[in-house]
Amino acid sequence: MTDLAAVKAALKTQAVETPSWAYGNSGTRFKVFAQQGVPRSPREKLDDAAQVHALTGVAPTVALHIPWDTVDDYAALAGYAEERGLRLGAINSNTFQDDDYRLGSICHPDAAVRRKAVGHLLECVDIMDATGSQDLKLWFADGTNYPGQDDLRGRQDRLAEGLAEVYARLGEGQRMLLEYKFFEPAFYATDVPDWGTAYAHCLKLGPKAQVVVDTGHHAPGTNIEFIVATLLREGKLGGFDFNSRFYADDDLMVGAADPFQLFRIMYEVVRGGGFTADVAFMLDQCHNIEPKVPAIIRSVMNVQEATAKALLVDAEALAAAQRAEDVLGANAVLMDAYNTDVRPLLAEVREEMGLDPDPMGAFARSGWAEKVVAERVGGEQAGWGA
Amino acid sequence: MTDLAAVKAALKTQAVETPSWAYGNSGTRFKVFAQQGVPRSPREKLDDAAQVHALTGVAPTVALHIPWDTVDDYAALAGYAEERGLRLGAINSNTFQDDDYRLGSICHPDAAVRRKAVGHLLECVDIMDATGSQDLKLWFADGTNYPGQDDLRGRQDRLAEGLAEVYARLGEGQRMLLEYKFFEPAFYATDVPDWGTAYAHCLKLGPKAQVVVDTGHHAPGTNIEFIVATLLREGKLGGFDFNSRFYADDDLMVGAADPFQLFRIMYEVVRGGGFTADVAFMLDQCHNIEPKVPAIIRSVMNVQEATAKALLVDAEALAAAQRAEDVLGANAVLMDAYNTDVRPLLAEVREEMGLDPDPMGAFARSGWAEKVVAERVGGEQAGWGA
Amino acid sequence: MTDLAAVKAALKTQAVETPSWAYGNSGTRFKVFAQQGVPRSPREKLDDAAQVHALTGVAPTVALHIPWDTVDDYAALAGYAEERGLRLGAINSNTFQDDDYRLGSICHPDAAVRRKAVGHLLECVDIMDATGSQDLKLWFADGTNYPGQDDLRGRQDRLAEGLAEVYARLGEGQRMLLEYKFFEPAFYATDVPDWGTAYAHCLKLGPKAQVVVDTGHHAPGTNIEFIVATLLREGKLGGFDFNSRFYADDDLMVGAADPFQLFRIMYEVVRGGGFTADVAFMLDQCHNIEPKVPAIIRSVMNVQEATAKALLVDAEALAAAQRAEDVLGANAVLMDAYNTDVRPLLAEVREEMGLDPDPMGAFARSGWAEKVVAERVGGEQAGWGA
Amino acid sequence: MTDLAAVKAALKTQAVETPSWAYGNSGTRFKVFAQQGVPRSPREKLDDAAQVHALTGVAPTVALHIPWDTVDDYAALAGYAEERGLRLGAINSNTFQDDDYRLGSICHPDAAVRRKAVGHLLECVDIMDATGSQDLKLWFADGTNYPGQDDLRGRQDRLAEGLAEVYARLGEGQRMLLEYKFFEPAFYATDVPDWGTAYAHCLKLGPKAQVVVDTGHHAPGTNIEFIVATLLREGKLGGFDFNSRFYADDDLMVGAADPFQLFRIMYEVVRGGGFTADVAFMLDQCHNIEPKVPAIIRSVMNVQEATAKALLVDAEALAAAQRAEDVLGANAVLMDAYNTDVRPLLAEVREEMGLDPDPMGAFARSGWAEKVVAERVGGEQAGWGA
Repeated sequence: MTDLAAVKAALKTQAVETPSWAYGNSGTRFKVFAQQGVPRSPREKLDDAAQVHALTGVAPTVALHIPWDTVDDYAALAGYAEERGLRLGAINSNTFQDDDYRLGSICHPDAAVRRKAVGHLLECVDIMDATGSQDLKLWFADGTNYPGQDDLRGRQDRLAEGLAEVYARLGEGQRMLLEYKFFEPAFYATDVPDWGTAYAHCLKLGPKAQVVVDTGHHAPGTNIEFIVATLLREGKLGGFDFNSRFYADDDLMVGAADPFQLFRIMYEVVRGGGFTADVAFMLDQCHNIEPKVPAIIRSVMNVQEATAKALLVDAEALAAAQRAEDVLGANAVLMDAYNTDVRPLLAEVREEMGLDPDPMGAFARSGWAEKVVAERVGGEQAGWGA
Repeated sequence: MTDLAAVKAALKTQAVETPSWAYGNSGTRFKVFAQQGVPRSPREKLDDAAQVHALTGVAPTVALHIPWDTVDDYAALAGYAEERGLRLGAINSNTFQDDDYRLGSICHPDAAVRRKAVGHLLECVDIMDATGSQDLKLWFADGTNYPGQDDLRGRQDRLAEGLAEVYARLGEGQRMLLEYKFFEPAFYATDVPDWGTAYAHCLKLGPKAQVVVDTGHHAPGTNIEFIVATLLREGKLGGFDFNSRFYADDDLMVGAADPFQLFRIMYEVVRGGGFTADVAFMLDQCHNIEPKVPAIIRSVMNVQEATAKALLVDAEALAAAQRAEDVLGANAVLMDAYNTDVRPLLAEVREEMGLDPDPMGAFARSGWAEKVVAERVGGEQAGWGA
Repeated sequence: MTDLAAVKAALKTQAVETPSWAYGNSGTRFKVFAQQGVPRSPREKLDDAAQVHALTGVAPTVALHIPWDTVDDYAALAGYAEERGLRLGAINSNTFQDDDYRLGSICHPDAAVRRKAVGHLLECVDIMDATGSQDLKLWFADGTNYPGQDDLRGRQDRLAEGLAEVYARLGEGQRMLLEYKFFEPAFYATDVPDWGTAYAHCLKLGPKAQVVVDTGHHAPGTNIEFIVATLLREGKLGGFDFNSRFYADDDLMVGAADPFQLFRIMYEVVRGGGFTADVAFMLDQCHNIEPKVPAIIRSVMNVQEATAKALLVDAEALAAAQRAEDVLGANAVLMDAYNTDVRPLLAEVREEMGLDPDPMGAFARSGWAEKVVAERVGGEQAGWGA
Repeated sequence: MTDLAAVKAALKTQAVETPSWAYGNSGTRFKVFAQQGVPRSPREKLDDAAQVHALTGVAPTVALHIPWDTVDDYAALAGYAEERGLRLGAINSNTFQDDDYRLGSICHPDAAVRRKAVGHLLECVDIMDATGSQDLKLWFADGTNYPGQDDLRGRQDRLAEGLAEVYARLGEGQRMLLEYKFFEPAFYATDVPDWGTAYAHCLKLGPKAQVVVDTGHHAPGTNIEFIVATLLREGKLGGFDFNSRFYADDDLMVGAADPFQLFRIMYEVVRGGGFTADVAFMLDQCHNIEPKVPAIIRSVMNVQEATAKALLVDAEALAAAQRAEDVLGANAVLMDAYNTDVRPLLAEVREEMGLDPDPMGAFARSGWAEKVVAERVGGEQAGWGA
């Protein structure tokens, strides 16, 4: 029997971090479609993020991306966030948009470029000190496009060396979250292509280094929840970058492409104790064609729904069926939770939190979208380049 | 027994079309790395293309992309090409980079946007009239990112209607080449996702409508040479967009990722009579990190090498082994051709054509790269946006 | 607004065909795990199928596989079925288990083997005459394992020739359903690998030839509902072989791996008028480790649940949101239906049909499983080999 | 500059282990096509393997599979091998063909089944003691078909426990080689699905535990040579199971599907020092439709050709181009080696070893195939079941 009160309590304490860049423009290599009302500064991104948190109650932190969110005074930015009920979350580094990084950054064949990349990462830790952020999130676009282009093994040596230097700089309570990615923008070989590589590096670095699972960064057919279960078992799951995909790193709204997979992932999180432990739940999405703030609200709700279903799994019944070698029975216990319509439960949870039970409707009624379209005129819209 | 003289003769008459856009800057959604010396105008692209043809002898035509190659006087551009030993090739349409096309072009839910898209295609046929181009190459970025976003079937109806209007406009000796693509930039559903869809539309349109096979536009594991053989058998193979890929539409140099696959494709072309018939062999690549002109020379050479190997297959021995149900023997006949080092043969062919046997070396020695870096200063470099 | 009465009426008329072979033993190339109580004859398979229909009310027909279900008197077998409230469904041919078929059947290089294969198919039509079956379902294991092993194009010629002969034999009201499969058991090239190939052949054969979509027979990332929509639009969707898969042709219970995909497929069926038209809904699954009869009941229920959700989609609201170019709104209309817990609705439907609202529980309580374990002792259990 | 004498010397010392089971019948779940002349006992398999070694000179060891190769007296079997110039190689365990293993073996929910599985593995170590085999090769079919069927994390705990017990039993100079596999026969989750999982377990077990890379056991698009490079860098590459595949675990002849990939893998072996170190090069293939002995000879030759090309890579030129950030130049150095026709070189190597330069022709001329067809009449042919 599931304890509904405990489920509700868990749902109320959930925290989903939204990424500053999802509030700005994004697109594909073919076209970035600009949208009206898009923020033009880190503060305006926080203004939008505050709407998401105000309406959902579970999105209290915002991830920054450096240099897209570079400001003169990070403490002031943190204060600005706090005034809006937010905190600044993970600091995301960028070592892929300078011309120097054409052939890589921390794995580049030229020591000067590697030095520059490590310098940027160290600067990100400085920013963490200023913002109070706990996590340095590292994603490297490093890799090669052609066989022979560079030495695969040598690149690993350089990676290990650079990471070690950054790791040594981490302060008390600070972590390094290392993300892996199957492919793109490197097409032949990626330097951190899978969880095994990220895990092997984190293991050598030490306890402050943890692996990040971006749900869109896997080969087709990969069982992501297995990786989640394994990393939790190893004590090496640092967090998630949530999004969804049909084929590659599509960066669609989390839960949009395969809601059953998201449920299975959240089930393994619950099963492995990750829901209450030190695992960061972050969104990392691109809203190329849909309006951004409501898409982010919807994404947060999708995570909530998957979580609610995962929490509703009758753990005792499941374990009993598994022990009894009852294949269909055990599967049915899981499916019963998945097939439950948890929207009424979440509406209740929201009302108990003093929120509108319908965040999407509430946002539409709030006039925020119209307001920012009217006000955010002129200037340069935020996007991946700025 | 293979007739070497016939193989050489065939190699000398080969024609590989290079795309104007490959001479300009390109990149991924993460970054476009600009290169020095990149053309700033359609004429400068033709200047580069003339180098490729001068050195390889088999790249006499250049595909244009509208509006990236928009000029006031297409006849003058054709004359400029002719002076450099080139002709203008396929006209490639672009219905994906206007803000209007956020939700599609020829399949868009709004009739006004569809009208605009069809208007652009008709304008491309006007340009064909002016340039003497035979082929209108159509690739549509149309599709949807989220289930339910639009009506899959309704979009097919709109597609059929728009294509029919353009088809009706084609003049004597003009063709419509319809390209399919598995995914990107649409992530949930693409409106022309596979050869079957392109084939079904072309069949209804009539004999001037043919399918284009872009070697990077398939699901993992797809047997592309089977599609080539099938389309040739159906009389519906209009041409190729050559490139190579490890995972998605990586747009690497053709033959770089899987040279054996390229050989198998060229073998089916030879087998199906496509090498001498009305099949267009075009490159469609992005040289994101490598210098563009030598990358294109290398790509042309890769097509030549695969073609040479395909021509070297001992057709009689192969047929005999197949008839004898000799699995290993038949495979060995094919592999014997593939394992042959055809570089000496191609060097001979080039010398007989009055060319340097080593096009890559010849280009390096030509000083062209240094010359354009010195001369092409200022102005706006060509790229996907212009 | 959805008309609930109409939804219920539609659900009551649904018909899911179960395959005789799913009641027998099956497995992987590594091991077939025999189960107790498995049928030893076509009649015992029908006995099991009758349980499925009695408990679900929507599984009135049973597909046969020749020669696995060979009997002396097919009319008698049809009578046996009728006594149990069943009818005999599609006749499935087998041209892959004789030693002669090592290198193919209808595409084999040897005309004698092709002749044998065609003879078997004609015999299957004779059986259809005797059983009153409407559909001849053709799946060919034909293909090659090694490049060069046989002539890809020549095999298509042979395929076309053989199919034409069988097509000519079809009587009034009889159809040929041609199935495609991405790979397995041929690993290099499959002779009918995709819907395009099946479609091209069916088009030439005529209106009695239709394409079958087996949901497990696609490349990774393929949008199956797009194919369904397209085939319906072309009037060429003959039916489904339902099952589910995580990676290859796993043949798991339909809806088990990706219930959202099944819903999207059923939505396109509803949208395209296929739910009421001449589309056959068949299961084609292997229950390698789970008990077979309850697995089949569960599978039928999974199809019902997906269908119910598809019928619940508010078509007017969806069309309105699509017209309004409201990406999130249109997606939300679809998701609202998907997120609905339709189990109570289906329980009602069952009760209105005079059935137990809980077919799985009813089967467990029926004692059938224990009864057949006790009674079906000795003899040879049915499996893929017999 | 490459040192040709060193290349030849390396090629002469190469050792490719052939698997006893490849000499027997195999097939797919649809059909096992029996072939004439197939061995009926472990000794007859060794007779065939001796032909392969006699003709190639580089296949001195034969892997056994228990219980398929169970004999009363393993020392006698080793002696029989020695008389034929062979040694017994890795012992392969089988924990997937007893009825008890329906839901797994070493990860099974029932401790009694786990005990049985571990007992079998310990027995395999006993056999190693008798045969003098160095390697225990472990592949587990363990996994689940349905979400919820069993506890993913609990299964890892059981796996760790079982492996530890077996590891403790290993003697001096004995190793445990742990194989991973992406999918099949488990379709939802596999308990050792990727190199990361195998690596994590081996790391905890100790230096005698190493990872085996089966080239067919990866998700589509996986860069296998990266894994090879990484495992060599970590000192954890125990060996290879060579075969090739177009889609799943097709088990075709190594080098048949993607010879360029095999070359890249062998290049990383050479680059990482694996060619001279303690890495086992084993075949693991199924010759379903082609004659087995020549297929194995061909496979050994394919490995030789890929190795020869890898050894021919001009390491200095490559490193120089990589340092110079010359993408095309570095790729060209690799491709120069790949495009070399190494068959004449290998013919020389064979002649210097006192062998026929053409092993395939020599086998055809030897009369061995005809001899065994004539002699091996009656009895039960070897296959996966025996």
